[in-house]
Amino acid sequence: MRILLTGAAGFLGSHLCDRLLYEGHVVVGLDNFVTGNRENLVHLVRNKDFTFIRQDVSETISVRGKLDAVLHFASPASPNPDSPFGYPNLPVETLKAGSLGTFNTLDLARINHSRFLFASTSEVYGDPLEHPQTEAYWGHVNSVGPRSMYDEAKRFSEALIMAYFRSKTSDTRIVRIFNTYGPRMRLDDGRVVPSFIQQALRSEPLTIYGDGLQTRSFCYVDDLVDGIYRLLLTDEHLPVNIGNPVETTILDFAETINRITGNTAGLEFHSDKRLGNDPERRCPDISRARDLLGWEPKVNLEEGLVRTITSFREKMGII
Amino acid sequence: MRILLTGAAGFLGSHLCDRLLYEGHVVVGLDNFVTGNRENLVHLVRNKDFTFIRQDVSETISVRGKLDAVLHFASPASPNPDSPFGYPNLPVETLKAGSLGTFNTLDLARINHSRFLFASTSEVYGDPLEHPQTEAYWGHVNSVGPRSMYDEAKRFSEALIMAYFRSKTSDTRIVRIFNTYGPRMRLDDGRVVPSFIQQALRSEPLTIYGDGLQTRSFCYVDDLVDGIYRLLLTDEHLPVNIGNPVETTILDFAETINRITGNTAGLEFHSDKRLGNDPERRCPDISRARDLLGWEPKVNLEEGLVRTITSFREKMGII
Repeated sequence: MRILLTGAAGFLGSHLCDRLLYEGHVVVGLDNFVTGNRENLVHLVRNKDFTFIRQDVSETISVRGKLDAVLHFASPASPNPDSPFGYPNLPVETLKAGSLGTFNTLDLARINHSRFLFASTSEVYGDPLEHPQTEAYWGHVNSVGPRSMYDEAKRFSEALIMAYFRSKTSDTRIVRIFNTYGPRMRLDDGRVVPSFIQQALRSEPLTIYGDGLQTRSFCYVDDLVDGIYRLLLTDEHLPVNIGNPVETTILDFAETINRITGNTAGLEFHSDKRLGNDPERRCPDISRARDLLGWEPKVNLEEGLVRTITSFREKMGII
Repeated sequence: MRILLTGAAGFLGSHLCDRLLYEGHVVVGLDNFVTGNRENLVHLVRNKDFTFIRQDVSETISVRGKLDAVLHFASPASPNPDSPFGYPNLPVETLKAGSLGTFNTLDLARINHSRFLFASTSEVYGDPLEHPQTEAYWGHVNSVGPRSMYDEAKRFSEALIMAYFRSKTSDTRIVRIFNTYGPRMRLDDGRVVPSFIQQALRSEPLTIYGDGLQTRSFCYVDDLVDGIYRLLLTDEHLPVNIGNPVETTILDFAETINRITGNTAGLEFHSDKRLGNDPERRCPDISRARDLLGWEPKVNLEEGLVRTITSFREKMGII
């Protein structure tokens, strides 16, 4: 297939590029580098099956040649209000990527009679009142809250995609992505994985906001990309959760990183400065992914962290 | 003030035009007539303080001259899947009005340094799990359900407006409008009030879907417009519910209409064909409107229905 991937220079986008190329597809990567990173694509510069176009997905997209699939992954994705790359500091860009960007990519898929796949998020469940979250759960989201620029943009996109699908205009797929980690995360986007690993590699105590008992389910990026690729090949049009259902407390997670890195500086507890409406628990029910895609995660946390820490060492120049 | 009002030819829009003109403002009405009705504005044709432009709010808006306020009311608004004017049959138009339309009108307000007011809806609460609904309730909405084109467009708009407000780009207001009725509702949009009144005036039994015990809180349009006008004059930026908190079952409502019209054909119960995810109960908590605006509804259901039925008689040519 010849595949357009928006957000190609992002953490997930660049790993997805690699997988699509590995599977023998031709990939057109698109990014505007607002939060994406050129370095993530450097290794593909000489790949004849890869081309890159620098464009903003929220403006008119022009791509030459026939496309067989359009994958819309472009959006700021870090909730951290202290990072310049966090969506709280890019609210209008985030809302545009999840509305104008979705219109533009859907129309491109329509014109090309191509497959369409959208990167939605567990954030559509908001601060969930049900655990674990199945795709049938409607979510608990504050439409005017501090995270609403991201959550509502993604929810809007889902509604728009279903409207295109139901009117038989497009052949669409929606993946709801849960917390993911791995090489190529931005060191500076303020999310918990790069923050912890950086602190550990600098032999600093890891900063825990609140009591650290809030849980997350961390999926290694290769597993995630495998689930997305399987979904692309199916004809499943309703949302599918992809994520790791193993819940870990932030506390356990920090201690594991300290152990792997040999960091003896321990933990440091700070009063809770996280962005408001931060969910206390979030964990995917992946029954649909298991049934429909025959998918489940294979990389355990220890193994995934070792790979991630190795790549962060290189990135930070620590040998 | 010189005020731009999108959706001016709609049911609410046209009543709001009248009130704004009555208060001495100059009004530029905008509509594309997708669901709006020319007849609703016929009485304003010779009014020197009123001008009309036929434009789609989802495309570039060009309005000459300085604006002091921009009111964005344009959107399909009937949930009825059997009506050509129902949003289930206009999904992309609805999603555009609540995204591109909101970007366009917000930008117009920004350029003009004008006030902005958005017509949001009780549908942001979805099928609510709390009663009555305060503005602090986050709602219970299915992002991929049959109503999502409307609900998610309105929720997206709220998030976008708060992003503009918080970045100090615009001086915004959000009204969450609950069920409203009155003269100039479309006879053919399939909503319960015009449907019941038409059946009653034709001496037919009123069609009740389900058991009729689902409740609604119906606000007479003059009351609603009064609340909106008061909100426009304040500096309140978080959403404010405007609606009538008196709950009525569909059954009581139908019987009242039969009594007022002298219709002896009674009621006819049909199995539930309403659009999926139709809320069983919805009722506003109007404490904020009372406190902030000194507003509460004044027209009781009997009085409002008499006025509405009188106008429907004229519209249907029944004297």
